[in-house]
Amino acid sequence: MPHQTEIKVRFSELDPYSHVNHAVYITYFEVARSEALVTAGIPLEMVGEAGYHFLVVELATRFKHSAVAGDTLTVETWLSGIGRASTRWSQRILRDGEVLTTQEVRVGMANSQGRPTRPPAFILDALGSGPITEPPGDLRGS
Amino acid sequence: MPHQTEIKVRFSELDPYSHVNHAVYITYFEVARSEALVTAGIPLEMVGEAGYHFLVVELATRFKHSAVAGDTLTVETWLSGIGRASTRWSQRILRDGEVLTTQEVRVGMANSQGRPTRPPAFILDALGSGPITEPPGDLRGS
Amino acid sequence: MPHQTEIKVRFSELDPYSHVNHAVYITYFEVARSEALVTAGIPLEMVGEAGYHFLVVELATRFKHSAVAGDTLTVETWLSGIGRASTRWSQRILRDGEVLTTQEVRVGMANSQGRPTRPPAFILDALGSGPITEPPGDLRGS
Amino acid sequence: MPHQTEIKVRFSELDPYSHVNHAVYITYFEVARSEALVTAGIPLEMVGEAGYHFLVVELATRFKHSAVAGDTLTVETWLSGIGRASTRWSQRILRDGEVLTTQEVRVGMANSQGRPTRPPAFILDALGSGPITEPPGDLRGS
Repeated sequence: MPHQTEIKVRFSELDPYSHVNHAVYITYFEVARSEALVTAGIPLEMVGEAGYHFLVVELATRFKHSAVAGDTLTVETWLSGIGRASTRWSQRILRDGEVLTTQEVRVGMANSQGRPTRPPAFILDALGSGPITEPPGDLRGS
Repeated sequence: MPHQTEIKVRFSELDPYSHVNHAVYITYFEVARSEALVTAGIPLEMVGEAGYHFLVVELATRFKHSAVAGDTLTVETWLSGIGRASTRWSQRILRDGEVLTTQEVRVGMANSQGRPTRPPAFILDALGSGPITEPPGDLRGS
Repeated sequence: MPHQTEIKVRFSELDPYSHVNHAVYITYFEVARSEALVTAGIPLEMVGEAGYHFLVVELATRFKHSAVAGDTLTVETWLSGIGRASTRWSQRILRDGEVLTTQEVRVGMANSQGRPTRPPAFILDALGSGPITEPPGDLRGS
Repeated sequence: MPHQTEIKVRFSELDPYSHVNHAVYITYFEVARSEALVTAGIPLEMVGEAGYHFLVVELATRFKHSAVAGDTLTVETWLSGIGRASTRWSQRILRDGEVLTTQEVRVGMANSQGRPTRPPAFILDALGSGPITEPPGDLRGS
């Protein structure tokens, strides 16, 4: 099972079309990745104190259906790849089992000077061993 | 020349890494597209009053360099494609001529019930005739 | 007991001082009032469909301690006054029982043209009868 | 003349009532104070590098009229008081000369450990000598 986060839509996140503004989903996805890191044992604060931070390098997002007032959403997050200098995350947002939005995101690592660097061992270990590497059942090959 | 918008970085858009949070660029790009539509003669309010609205269908964004406190950014926006049911926009954010972020975004059209629909003639005309279809000089083929 | 809402601090809500930016608390308070209205049986969508909306007229906020990364906050919300043309709400944000922020806010009512108007009976009834009129125990007179 | 900042309303700052959400004005006011500090010669980055940061202690805001899509707003900012441990700022947001929102805000100073402290001399000097201490003409006594 991938990591799951629940997010309630806030009124101020709706735009004049009465649906969640598209940029807000990018924040929802970030909230979910932060919580997945907590689950993996490496909250962002710990990563920062060790002199590192994650940097989003690229993302690709598809918007299929809109979230609206009153919605409680589930964000699923799983690691789809761990490379030498970056990790790949897959994410999707669901409402009652229906997929509203999907995202692929590549995240690099920077040192305290903001320079790209390889993730240190404690981060690779935490990411590699955790349950957050499992895609959702319906996306798993047989 | 593509459409150009100036945006000043706000303090609250910086995160604990003292750079602009990645989700904020998605908003900067939306600000720039809205202003490009004003230039094309079809501000979002007019589109809305005519019973239509634009819907972001997908986007792909690359983050190369970070914007920081005090930066004034230029967002370049140009239409890279007009299809039957959607338009393609290319955008990039620069600081002093250096490209920080690029984005490709596909935007669909919805009617007042939120259903996908073809853009009406006044929108296609406004988009097709304007100067916003021109890419920046350094991206133009010879 | 006043209405209670739990809110988890999001990474993007932190500013370069690594604490929650002060404007974000205003949004937290709005989230809590929206949920209090759901509890009272009059979610904002219902109010809107009936042709009304709430308008914040004035607010006064005191910031005592900062929320930081990883915090889960409790927002307490109670109605401190129901007038002819507006309602008064008192709110506070706590972390583990410690008060971080307090707010007094006066909210008016507007009709579908955006004009100030008296709240209709169904809203006054819902507000007046609910449990959301009770202040927290430590603020109740003896 | 007080300090003046121009701010264009962004589409994503509008809520389903098609006006700027009330919490956004709090950010507009912060943008304007940051720029007033630049004018006074002490941008926030410089203050931060010197080991200090400003902390909003309390604010009181009145919302009279709403900003809407397409609006360009002027934020006026002036120092209404400099105390030993905090400064008082007065601000207002106008559209074409009409006052939409006013704010009184008290701002304290913290050291690098986040503890309240007295402003150092270079900050007091910068604040006290600048043109940002002048209220708008229509608010000046005769």
